[in-house]
Amino acid sequence: MTIRSPALGQVQTSQLPFRSTGKVCDVESSDHIDVASLEPMFRPASVAIIGASADPARIGGMPLAFLKANRFAGPIYPVNPRAPTIQELPAFASIRDIGKPVDLALIAVPAAHVIPSLEACVEVGVRAVIIFTSGFAEIDAEGARAQERIAAIGRAGGVRIMGPNCIGLVNFSNGLYMSFHPAFAFSGKPGGRLGIVTQSGAFGGHVHRMALDRDISYSYCITTGNEADVDVADGIAFLAEDPGTKAIQVYLEGFRNGRKFVRALEMAQRNAKPVIAIKLGRTEAGAAAAASHTAALAGADAVWDAVFRQYGVHRATSIEEFLEIGIAGAMAQRPPNDRIGLVSVSGGVGVLMADAAAERGLDVAPMPQAPQDKIRKLVPFAATRNPIDITGQVVNDFSLLGQAIEIMAGEGGYGSLVPFIGSSARIPERCARLLEQFGELHARYPELLLVAAAFSPPEFRNGLHALGYLSYEEPVSAVHAIAALAAFRRHFARNDAPPEPPPVTPAPARGGPLSEFESLRFLKSAGLPVVDARLVDSVEAAQAAAAALGFPVALKVASADILHKSDVGGVALGLKSPAALGEAYAAMAAGVAAKTGRAVETFTVAPMISGGVETVLGVNRDPVFGPVVMFGLGGIFVEALGDVVFRAAPFGRDEAHRMIREIRSFRVLEGVRGRPAADVDALAAALARLSALAAAHADAIESIDVNPFLVRANGQGAVALDALVIPRKSE
Amino acid sequence: MTIRSPALGQVQTSQLPFRSTGKVCDVESSDHIDVASLEPMFRPASVAIIGASADPARIGGMPLAFLKANRFAGPIYPVNPRAPTIQELPAFASIRDIGKPVDLALIAVPAAHVIPSLEACVEVGVRAVIIFTSGFAEIDAEGARAQERIAAIGRAGGVRIMGPNCIGLVNFSNGLYMSFHPAFAFSGKPGGRLGIVTQSGAFGGHVHRMALDRDISYSYCITTGNEADVDVADGIAFLAEDPGTKAIQVYLEGFRNGRKFVRALEMAQRNAKPVIAIKLGRTEAGAAAAASHTAALAGADAVWDAVFRQYGVHRATSIEEFLEIGIAGAMAQRPPNDRIGLVSVSGGVGVLMADAAAERGLDVAPMPQAPQDKIRKLVPFAATRNPIDITGQVVNDFSLLGQAIEIMAGEGGYGSLVPFIGSSARIPERCARLLEQFGELHARYPELLLVAAAFSPPEFRNGLHALGYLSYEEPVSAVHAIAALAAFRRHFARNDAPPEPPPVTPAPARGGPLSEFESLRFLKSAGLPVVDARLVDSVEAAQAAAAALGFPVALKVASADILHKSDVGGVALGLKSPAALGEAYAAMAAGVAAKTGRAVETFTVAPMISGGVETVLGVNRDPVFGPVVMFGLGGIFVEALGDVVFRAAPFGRDEAHRMIREIRSFRVLEGVRGRPAADVDALAAALARLSALAAAHADAIESIDVNPFLVRANGQGAVALDALVIPRKSE
Repeated sequence: MTIRSPALGQVQTSQLPFRSTGKVCDVESSDHIDVASLEPMFRPASVAIIGASADPARIGGMPLAFLKANRFAGPIYPVNPRAPTIQELPAFASIRDIGKPVDLALIAVPAAHVIPSLEACVEVGVRAVIIFTSGFAEIDAEGARAQERIAAIGRAGGVRIMGPNCIGLVNFSNGLYMSFHPAFAFSGKPGGRLGIVTQSGAFGGHVHRMALDRDISYSYCITTGNEADVDVADGIAFLAEDPGTKAIQVYLEGFRNGRKFVRALEMAQRNAKPVIAIKLGRTEAGAAAAASHTAALAGADAVWDAVFRQYGVHRATSIEEFLEIGIAGAMAQRPPNDRIGLVSVSGGVGVLMADAAAERGLDVAPMPQAPQDKIRKLVPFAATRNPIDITGQVVNDFSLLGQAIEIMAGEGGYGSLVPFIGSSARIPERCARLLEQFGELHARYPELLLVAAAFSPPEFRNGLHALGYLSYEEPVSAVHAIAALAAFRRHFARNDAPPEPPPVTPAPARGGPLSEFESLRFLKSAGLPVVDARLVDSVEAAQAAAAALGFPVALKVASADILHKSDVGGVALGLKSPAALGEAYAAMAAGVAAKTGRAVETFTVAPMISGGVETVLGVNRDPVFGPVVMFGLGGIFVEALGDVVFRAAPFGRDEAHRMIREIRSFRVLEGVRGRPAADVDALAAALARLSALAAAHADAIESIDVNPFLVRANGQGAVALDALVIPRKSE
Repeated sequence: MTIRSPALGQVQTSQLPFRSTGKVCDVESSDHIDVASLEPMFRPASVAIIGASADPARIGGMPLAFLKANRFAGPIYPVNPRAPTIQELPAFASIRDIGKPVDLALIAVPAAHVIPSLEACVEVGVRAVIIFTSGFAEIDAEGARAQERIAAIGRAGGVRIMGPNCIGLVNFSNGLYMSFHPAFAFSGKPGGRLGIVTQSGAFGGHVHRMALDRDISYSYCITTGNEADVDVADGIAFLAEDPGTKAIQVYLEGFRNGRKFVRALEMAQRNAKPVIAIKLGRTEAGAAAAASHTAALAGADAVWDAVFRQYGVHRATSIEEFLEIGIAGAMAQRPPNDRIGLVSVSGGVGVLMADAAAERGLDVAPMPQAPQDKIRKLVPFAATRNPIDITGQVVNDFSLLGQAIEIMAGEGGYGSLVPFIGSSARIPERCARLLEQFGELHARYPELLLVAAAFSPPEFRNGLHALGYLSYEEPVSAVHAIAALAAFRRHFARNDAPPEPPPVTPAPARGGPLSEFESLRFLKSAGLPVVDARLVDSVEAAQAAAAALGFPVALKVASADILHKSDVGGVALGLKSPAALGEAYAAMAAGVAAKTGRAVETFTVAPMISGGVETVLGVNRDPVFGPVVMFGLGGIFVEALGDVVFRAAPFGRDEAHRMIREIRSFRVLEGVRGRPAADVDALAAALARLSALAAAHADAIESIDVNPFLVRANGQGAVALDALVIPRKSE
């Protein structure tokens, strides 16, 4: 496999700077998720450790030590043929010797012994297995075959398998520390509300430590390794259904089953659980490229980005952002609206926060006049609009801060408030007073979200978390957290129209590209507006068609073999009379025949349509997500600026509207230089229909290129002027 | 004054959410900076406190307590008529009673007493004065007049003044804690390398506390308040010349003397001191707007942004970024090149850093083969290219990390290295071993910058600082710090050609806009390439001109009164023959006369020039920085995308090249859709010449709009096809 990264250029995976997770995805077309079957893995009543070691520093010893230290409640059965007891527990020579039900078995033996151990587990009715051992698909083809065998044994025996080549999982609520990452020597507290699924075990251990530094414990840490069976989508789904988990973090290096991933995200969405992702390892964009003109732009990472937006996932670009937004999603209530109120003891910090808020799409709405007057009564020189600056007066009278917050909360109509309070919370009596005040505020305005920007000692931060509030030293981070929570709220509150019904259009026959005429007809049958082109085979027919359509007209050769018509003189535009059409017909027939060496028998005549904004719609097959719809403005916007957006198909008109508004040059559609606003509704409807068509024939269509798709003035609709549909080649 | 902010919309300063600093800038045209005269203010041998209080919690008492606590070495003279001793020091009834030289006096008395106190200071030869008292220009016009009086007294008496309405300054190296911000109850250590100048005292106190949390002390904290005399530019200049200060932070709410600000930045640049800025309070963009078409785009904040880029200032958008890049600039060496080497024990984190590095313009260059082989010998399954992943093997053999770093440092050719080492530095013996190793590394490769991404206990972070190295918990922050330091190095290493010499062109006469013909002639005389337009006053003259130029030609009305020629039918393009020209001439003369009610007597005839990229060059007057040059691509790029860049005039061709490459649509100039690359050298030369013209006639030109400026294929130059010069109105 070849991977593209802005940093690394195009590299072979063999040179990849991260350990390959060696995923073997033999059932990638299935998007089935069975959460119930994961129960014995994540909440086992009993566990066995095959390859248990007496040395708590070793891979086979560490989980045992962790389980004991964290008082896992069920029986623990060490399996080791060479010792009667392991870490003071009676050991068994084989899992066959235990004689009692085992829900979850850990396999930590050399690679050659893994399959026999797994078979023994199946034989005695173990219900779930974790395999630490590496040396499978991440190494070579032989390893991949062994891994496929592991998966097959699990499927046949009804046993769910995590790994191989993983570092296990931790359920922090029941002491199930089934991992060998040294970070888990530091215990979390039960009752954590943030869950993580990660393809990198090292990463999971690292963020666990970072979280502990912030007094935050996870609910689950799930490391999926090579994903022979249980994968990140399963992990997301499990956490989506877990009542204790309130937000889900995902660390991804790569994933091939886009449909299953989307199903898992839909489960999280249904349960209103924020998902925060780091996604690395950008897959080859060009893999999807075909003859289609727009395909070259479809970087797979851009598609991941689009899917994250489409399904409301917050994509983080740093570990700290990943953790902080994760904590916010898990610990804080979401603001009921996008209006943010800012109150500061330093005017400058207020403006800094206001600009950050506006940049992230929050509404720094001014206060109504009455509460402004109240603030001014409190502090004569205060800024009262929003941000509110209660000035250094707060040094003389600390109660001013609480009074100002109360007024903003009660009369400002804000969904969230950020008080910047500097180092006050470091003074114990002020910290206590603030927490008391915030407690009263929460009782009075239970929906309001408060995020403090302050030097925050642990008791302050934890006190705020207990109220569903947050605190950050950095005021800009406070605003960013609110923006992320507001985006989650908006996403969960979506009430989109459903996607367009699948069109009844039959799939195009496998084979070569459709001609322009056939392509337009195919799109028309799926409900897209297309130019009224007529197929003709004589000058007379052309002239008759033109008379019916009205002059001026365009004349083009109609042959599926000629992809670039204008290169061979096969396009004549703006023909104003029957005579001009006749001349053009004769010249084109002769010219194209001379250039291509073949007689051309059919042409199209179409009305000239002008006035409007030229756009480009496209469909391409993404190797992960299947049919993906692209949108951009025509010509130089796409080619010079790469100003295009993507969505996984299918999607409805509301999503299409959001998609259209994501291009940087959206203003062109709103009308510039005195031009009228374009008919964005018609454009959105066309995108939604195109996505339904692409999804309905996902296996039959390689690509669709509608270029130009002319979007006319508002109310006048839109029309495809040219199109190219390329069916998938026979397999 | 009206201010625009994306968050706040357009607001009157009276509603501004930060305390107005009430600057009175009566000498704003002077860019003179006299650092020597600041010596007694920042390094006084003796200080007096007028309004000294016995209560160390009061404004007049706090500095006295701070001075004593921090053992200020010189004599301290409390002045208070109502007590014989203040805080155990003998007090004086008046500054006149001290009888010994006083370098610096602090005035902390009610507003009504400030001027008499200042006059007494001047009388007894005090050399510098700090005024805490508020109630001056930040309040009302009367306060502004009193402030002007303060400034005048200082100028006349040769006394430098800080404030009024400031919280003073701290020189951390000599115990001069001349401030009343409670944060300074926490002392810094002498020998700090980071200096800050801030218009908000509260902000200064806040970041001082943040820095202390990171074991970092400032060299100076300078709060300028209302800036009656000493302003942020003076502060930057002082720190630029201060040998102990290695990097300079600036917090700005607004500043009117752009030239002085630029002079101060040039001093910092000459001394290779990084400047890190937070700039708030975006000033009215429209203030500069005139009849010029492009003016509407010239947001003053965009101009600040341009000046920051032009003078190598790192503009921070959060307080944490402000502090972290400040610390990096002060504590760390700058990497000798942009090549960054990454080594990780978690492959995913390596990729995360690689993408962050590429996004910030660093070069994630692969290692040569020989060292890659060495790494692979160490760790068989390691990724060896860059990032290097030495995998979990490091758990078994910690020396692998040091060996990998040594190989990268010695054979990779990298200017900087980031090892991601997770929580190893939390283990004391590993921390010690790492520091020892890094010490050896520093001795062997003294130019190399190392930035650790690690959980960093204080001893680890401080140990790295001692070597000129840095550490961050967040790997992405480590990369961002290197990118900022590399940008500083590039900036300090610039060896630009000087700006173009000022053109000898006389300034345009004050009055109305120049006609297109006059405008083009003006630009031509300054060395810009312009279309060869001929002024004609008859059909015959037009036809003769066209014959000389060659058909086709363009015909336009030539009247300075008609700004929008095409609106009145005053433009005819592509005239192919004398007859067509004659017809167009007659029709235009009649048509324009009918529309404007006046006979038109002169026209221009110009050759039709096509082929090339249409761009727009402009000059506008910024209220802060004076003449500012704008550049963007023509038409929809400017209007729909706002894709324009600015530079303060004058600048040379190298800066012009950087400017041109800042537009998002630069790729259009490189050639898209089979078009040739444009003559960017000719474009850069034109921008540099335009900037020289604008600077030479800064007081005489309101705006210049060159639209379109056609940039032809590489080697074929560029040409202005239309222009509009608007002189400043008489004052």
